[in-house]
Amino acid sequence: MKIARFSMRSGSGAAGDPRFGIVDGDELVVLKGDPMFAGFETTDERVPLSEAKLLAPVIPRSKVVAVGKNFVDHVAEFGGEVPKEPLLFLKPNTSVIGPGDAIVVPRQSKRVDFEGELAIVIGSIARNVAEADVDSVIFGYTIANDVTARDLQKSDGQWARAKGFDTFCPLGPVIETEFEVAANTVQSRLNGESRQSAPFTDMVHSVASIVAYVSAAFTLLPGDVILTGTPAGVGRMVDGDVIEIEISGIGILSNPVRG
Amino acid sequence: MKIARFSMRSGSGAAGDPRFGIVDGDELVVLKGDPMFAGFETTDERVPLSEAKLLAPVIPRSKVVAVGKNFVDHVAEFGGEVPKEPLLFLKPNTSVIGPGDAIVVPRQSKRVDFEGELAIVIGSIARNVAEADVDSVIFGYTIANDVTARDLQKSDGQWARAKGFDTFCPLGPVIETEFEVAANTVQSRLNGESRQSAPFTDMVHSVASIVAYVSAAFTLLPGDVILTGTPAGVGRMVDGDVIEIEISGIGILSNPVRG
Repeated sequence: MKIARFSMRSGSGAAGDPRFGIVDGDELVVLKGDPMFAGFETTDERVPLSEAKLLAPVIPRSKVVAVGKNFVDHVAEFGGEVPKEPLLFLKPNTSVIGPGDAIVVPRQSKRVDFEGELAIVIGSIARNVAEADVDSVIFGYTIANDVTARDLQKSDGQWARAKGFDTFCPLGPVIETEFEVAANTVQSRLNGESRQSAPFTDMVHSVASIVAYVSAAFTLLPGDVILTGTPAGVGRMVDGDVIEIEISGIGILSNPVRG
Repeated sequence: MKIARFSMRSGSGAAGDPRFGIVDGDELVVLKGDPMFAGFETTDERVPLSEAKLLAPVIPRSKVVAVGKNFVDHVAEFGGEVPKEPLLFLKPNTSVIGPGDAIVVPRQSKRVDFEGELAIVIGSIARNVAEADVDSVIFGYTIANDVTARDLQKSDGQWARAKGFDTFCPLGPVIETEFEVAANTVQSRLNGESRQSAPFTDMVHSVASIVAYVSAAFTLLPGDVILTGTPAGVGRMVDGDVIEIEISGIGILSNPVRG
């Protein structure tokens, strides 16, 4: 099931926007509330996808956790070593934008890169979750672009700023609640040209091991998001570019870039 | 004015706990709502401080930003260099606890340190704030302990996990809304013995420059907290210890440690 969070393009939407809906062909079946908390109870209302502006499908109330260096070929392109344990960092929720929203290159950076990634959306309070139980705390999966000011990532040392600027965490377009990680792939296209392509079986640390590891340090809350790392092929974006991240089984996250 | 967030020790408190109050001698003058959003309108109710359990005076809805290496003598104790710009990292809001709550040493670490710090509480949405205008976005100041798993800080490289475990961000006991940073000092005492002591005039980057710098990267939201760095004298805490951070003009933040 694909869940979207949306407002009406016309601006004349019902009170209560943004709302949630289940994608059904070219329509959204409107839900009574946020399905993470209210379940999947539907209303009688249907909205054509063409009339809906899709938003980031979740705004993390607590945190966006991310894993660095989780594909061997990406680690190789920067000449580092693959960490034995997941390498964690945090992105602030103020960096989250939705599909179609502009990624803004900040004046502080001369080199802003895309990084296409699978994002785990946590559905329940989770602390010290065993690997075997991880599915029970996952609400679903979406697509993320772990936008990174590569120059500042290096000069700052700590990655919080370089990966935390406003607009540096596009999420969407939908949350897929029945996603088979191992059966799928991620691709990034810059202005239509393929730049990243990898199966999730290439991940060093699996989704189960990542969620177990993170939940052993931080209590995870419903709506928290975990980015699982990017494969080789990251590259620079400049004003006027369009970056698309596609994950088979979920969809395409497309964002323009403004300088 | 000293603002506390509290619940009743008896557990028989009014509906709507936790509530906010202004400290007046040994009483709290109860406020009508969260003063950050509702202003300082008082009720007729007064609660003896002895009957109130003080809580973390703010739970950041978005982020706890922290500044590393901001006192020359602390940088010297680890043999590093003072950064030319504030060195930013993030702590998740799930790490926040209140005065009197236990700091829990996680099984992953063999060395958990205290770091006494001044914490800035942001009061309004702030983006690209000029240094001269910083006071207008600050709600007040409180005390923080930037608890750090020193061994994991080194082995992870990125500090998110080592500084982000649950219970690793004690805040409180109150927010002082009229605090003169330059006129005050921070002291840390482990089991009553003085371990850190410094005037805030020793900061490398001032409060004004820190807030301006952070707001040029991340939009700050009301309730966001910025930790401003620790002086020399950080040290290990173990099960059974009590760590007190005192800031003149604000109060004492005391937390027990559990192994």
